[in-house]
Amino acid sequence: MKKGVFITVEGPEGAGKTTIIGMLADELEKEGHKVLKTREPGGIEIGEQIRKVILDKNNTAMDPRTEALLYAAARRQHLVEKVKPALESGMIVFCDRFIDSSLAYQGYARGLGIEEVFSINRFAIEEMMPELTFYFDIEPELGFKRIKQHKGREVNRLDLETMEFHQKVREGYLLLMERFPKRIYKIDASRTIEEVCKESKAKVKQLLDTK
Amino acid sequence: MKKGVFITVEGPEGAGKTTIIGMLADELEKEGHKVLKTREPGGIEIGEQIRKVILDKNNTAMDPRTEALLYAAARRQHLVEKVKPALESGMIVFCDRFIDSSLAYQGYARGLGIEEVFSINRFAIEEMMPELTFYFDIEPELGFKRIKQHKGREVNRLDLETMEFHQKVREGYLLLMERFPKRIYKIDASRTIEEVCKESKAKVKQLLDTK
Repeated sequence: MKKGVFITVEGPEGAGKTTIIGMLADELEKEGHKVLKTREPGGIEIGEQIRKVILDKNNTAMDPRTEALLYAAARRQHLVEKVKPALESGMIVFCDRFIDSSLAYQGYARGLGIEEVFSINRFAIEEMMPELTFYFDIEPELGFKRIKQHKGREVNRLDLETMEFHQKVREGYLLLMERFPKRIYKIDASRTIEEVCKESKAKVKQLLDTK
Repeated sequence: MKKGVFITVEGPEGAGKTTIIGMLADELEKEGHKVLKTREPGGIEIGEQIRKVILDKNNTAMDPRTEALLYAAARRQHLVEKVKPALESGMIVFCDRFIDSSLAYQGYARGLGIEEVFSINRFAIEEMMPELTFYFDIEPELGFKRIKQHKGREVNRLDLETMEFHQKVREGYLLLMERFPKRIYKIDASRTIEEVCKESKAKVKQLLDTK
């Protein structure tokens, strides 16, 4: 049934996720692969409506568990409407943030528990887990320095969290690497874009060679 | 911590849930109890926003798992903002539909699996499970006859489902009674309002006597 390849890219803001996905997609397309770049809610109407509820700055009373359930709901809809059809048609799908963001941010940094948040995401994802997940590792301070250089990037609710929170998110990602050692591949994202892209590309090619 | 009593009322449309809750609340208040009657999303802003996404007639592409996650999210927020403070202040809380509606409708009738839907609801509810749940049992046909007599009641998406679906919902509730025999108390709701109210009241008083 599933003929394509599902790859997710994780890491803090400013790690270069979006840039690298764009570069990888361009190179793979030149080699004849069909590639989908996406990011939840990914233009899916129902997911966009859910995201609007999550990011509404007036919703300060939102409980962390409500937020985690809403992320899982938007994830489900994006998977069903966008990722699944692409995989069935044989595409390479790159998703910018996925389950590990929920596990690191809500599960670990906000203290809901990685296994607890995993339980609701298992319900949302079913059999559609990524085959490969890149974790772009970078010190939060360096990531934020990079963001500030990109003018015009809107500040969202997560940016307003403390640096301490972002340190916890990083700890969460490092724990997830121990929990899912086969799926998650860590890349040192403090290096140049070219170096990060080269290493990522090699890993993707290695995965494609097993197909 | 929890000083009040949390009671939920379940059953198909037309079983008389809202009417009986109103009558019970009136009688208990006359006896000096403080009572909260509620029903998700219960005027909670975040819950109302979520419910709007669920009931939007344009959202025909909504996956059943997305829907179940959204119900769980609205449930969480309603619990945290409305039910929990009422219980902490010692009130008797009557909630018109709760977890068992999700288990019977999504879990059983839509085929997601009772245990699967229970897993996301466990995440949403945590320690705040109801102490007592009334299941108002009635043949779906009889329930719908009653609804038609109540003019002005808006027709929603669930009413548009087939009668076969509503028969499955009833089967689901009957299975839940086996799964949670101590919590769920079945009442024959085909009888007169007075009879149903009398039996419900006796059961509530029995519960209050154990406090």
